[in-house]
Amino acid sequence: MKTVETIGVIGGGQLGRMFALDAKRMGYYVVTLDPQEHSPCGQVADEQIVAAYEDLSAIEELGRRSDVITYEFENIHIGSVRHLENLGYHVTPSSSVLRVTQNRILEKQFARNAGLATTEFAHVRNADDLVRAGEEIGFPAILKTVRGGYDGKGQWRVDSIDEAAAAYDNANGAELIFESEVSLACELSVIATRNAHGDIVAYPVAENTHDRGILAMTVAPARVDDAIATRARDAAAIVGRDLGIVGTYCVEFFLSTGGDVLVNEIAPRPHNSGHYTIDVTPCSQYEQHVRAICELPLSPPRLLSNAIMMNVLGAGTGDHLAGIAQLLADPSIVLHVYGKRHAVARRKMGHFTMLVDGTVDDAAIARAEAAHAKLRWTP
Amino acid sequence: MKTVETIGVIGGGQLGRMFALDAKRMGYYVVTLDPQEHSPCGQVADEQIVAAYEDLSAIEELGRRSDVITYEFENIHIGSVRHLENLGYHVTPSSSVLRVTQNRILEKQFARNAGLATTEFAHVRNADDLVRAGEEIGFPAILKTVRGGYDGKGQWRVDSIDEAAAAYDNANGAELIFESEVSLACELSVIATRNAHGDIVAYPVAENTHDRGILAMTVAPARVDDAIATRARDAAAIVGRDLGIVGTYCVEFFLSTGGDVLVNEIAPRPHNSGHYTIDVTPCSQYEQHVRAICELPLSPPRLLSNAIMMNVLGAGTGDHLAGIAQLLADPSIVLHVYGKRHAVARRKMGHFTMLVDGTVDDAAIARAEAAHAKLRWTP
Repeated sequence: MKTVETIGVIGGGQLGRMFALDAKRMGYYVVTLDPQEHSPCGQVADEQIVAAYEDLSAIEELGRRSDVITYEFENIHIGSVRHLENLGYHVTPSSSVLRVTQNRILEKQFARNAGLATTEFAHVRNADDLVRAGEEIGFPAILKTVRGGYDGKGQWRVDSIDEAAAAYDNANGAELIFESEVSLACELSVIATRNAHGDIVAYPVAENTHDRGILAMTVAPARVDDAIATRARDAAAIVGRDLGIVGTYCVEFFLSTGGDVLVNEIAPRPHNSGHYTIDVTPCSQYEQHVRAICELPLSPPRLLSNAIMMNVLGAGTGDHLAGIAQLLADPSIVLHVYGKRHAVARRKMGHFTMLVDGTVDDAAIARAEAAHAKLRWTP
Repeated sequence: MKTVETIGVIGGGQLGRMFALDAKRMGYYVVTLDPQEHSPCGQVADEQIVAAYEDLSAIEELGRRSDVITYEFENIHIGSVRHLENLGYHVTPSSSVLRVTQNRILEKQFARNAGLATTEFAHVRNADDLVRAGEEIGFPAILKTVRGGYDGKGQWRVDSIDEAAAAYDNANGAELIFESEVSLACELSVIATRNAHGDIVAYPVAENTHDRGILAMTVAPARVDDAIATRARDAAAIVGRDLGIVGTYCVEFFLSTGGDVLVNEIAPRPHNSGHYTIDVTPCSQYEQHVRAICELPLSPPRLLSNAIMMNVLGAGTGDHLAGIAQLLADPSIVLHVYGKRHAVARRKMGHFTMLVDGTVDDAAIARAEAAHAKLRWTP
């Protein structure tokens, strides 16, 4: 591969922004493509192409300008990635990775084929499938759209076949996946990076708390037994290897009360639960992604401090973030704000990392929550 | 003061770039003004005004667009800063700080008036002054232009009155300062930040090695006695207080073989010897500057690791930096490249920080030097 000077990024959200901040620090020229002008990533990139993800001529322009192209979230138009590949441009992770991770059924089947545990699941394409799934898997269950859902959108928890039927109607004919609900001990994730030579590095296992489908808090490292952590990291390595991912990716797991480590979701990109790596490791998940796609050596992750990450969501009460001075009075806190204009309710607007000395305990989490409570959105 | 949303930065070099990377991470809108299109700072800022520093209408435009204005190096046109102040715009540090730090004579007189030690010095405005300085202060000595010199430009080491006269001719009538040469134990610097309430925080004292007038390496913390470190930090606090700086600044010191801590230079801005703070402290010198000028609480500095910083200078042998993969094979190294197009000989093109476990010793410095030797500039 020729030396990379320009990196193209499909998608201009906060993940692209944090990627671009690291890529710029390392001296790369960054071009992003996003339909929204002056997007979070576009603000810090050298250039933004303002176009829809499925605008093939704009996508081609991104290809022409870039030595390597990546994407910052997986719900982009796969046809655009295939188009670039067909033209001989280097896109990574490849469209074959995207194909699997865009589809919850293919994702689960992939995990099973790789020998990894998942929840019980069934594919629901029609009302008969739904009835059969209800009988075979039982309730409580989770129905999710097979494609396009994120941050709790397109998900319904159902307790009976009647509730399932109502959810099915709600989905307007979209294909669904029917999953048994797991008796949860906690949710875990592993951020890992794989390069073209097949080397893989993984950050410590993180522990995640969601609120209505959206990540609220990550604790790193997770407060689980070493044996559990090792199983999660091993599973993440298998995912990267068998999917052939080149870049940073995330595998989310359910840890059941019975001690099972179940693959839940695979994201072929840096992930919200890895934001803490920016502030407490010498090489963040974003820099690892730069390294992987630019054929530079990966950096074995090293924690300089334990950490709690908390998301800052919009409240719909205004676009101005108040309370920052109160938050930053605590010198253990590092703030990240994404430059989005409108703080729509439950939109991810920023996050903060709290550095924690020693083990993350309930007192530390209470401190993080108290810090979080200082922030509010005002007109 | 109203809440800051937009920060204006006069100057688009690497210091502005690293400042903008932190300001963007924190969610600010950043506008820079620099004569060179797509400057290092302009690449990561939201906008760049392309204009000369003394273009008052462009400077006014920067003022109109910004809630607060700062500058990234001190050799800008002081008239532009005064113009903004006269129009009621908030510029920080103020023009009165700039006036002193742009003039080596005023700077030394200020330090003396503040009760701080400096080298012996004399003001040379004509040939008679030069002869008198030679007689009173003696040789070896250093002649420097009173204004505009940096990175060893406009400096001459002289051993006799004849050499001094030759240097004086070389300076083409510029006012000079004649300083006694110090018998050096080492060079130190303190990066500190002062806010509008007069609070001051200071990073650990750093130890600097120069090569032909340009910083080559910083070791943090400096390998000096606590008593010396305390004197340097105390002196830095006095400088900030008595000059009334609001923002991050640097005081460079000579530590003489006799144990004297002499103020050498004052920079009213983040400084090359504080780059390491980006990688090994939760709040870098740039974020502290954001905090000071936006009236957010300062963050008491905390080292997560000891560090060695080495500058990467252009060689004049090409504009492509080779050897990055070899450099980054060491996971203790964090690379910063400034996005300058031309690697002119001895131009500051980037730097790296090496995280060091335990005390920085000769072996660690040898490792950093070996890492540095892996980099080269090719066409």
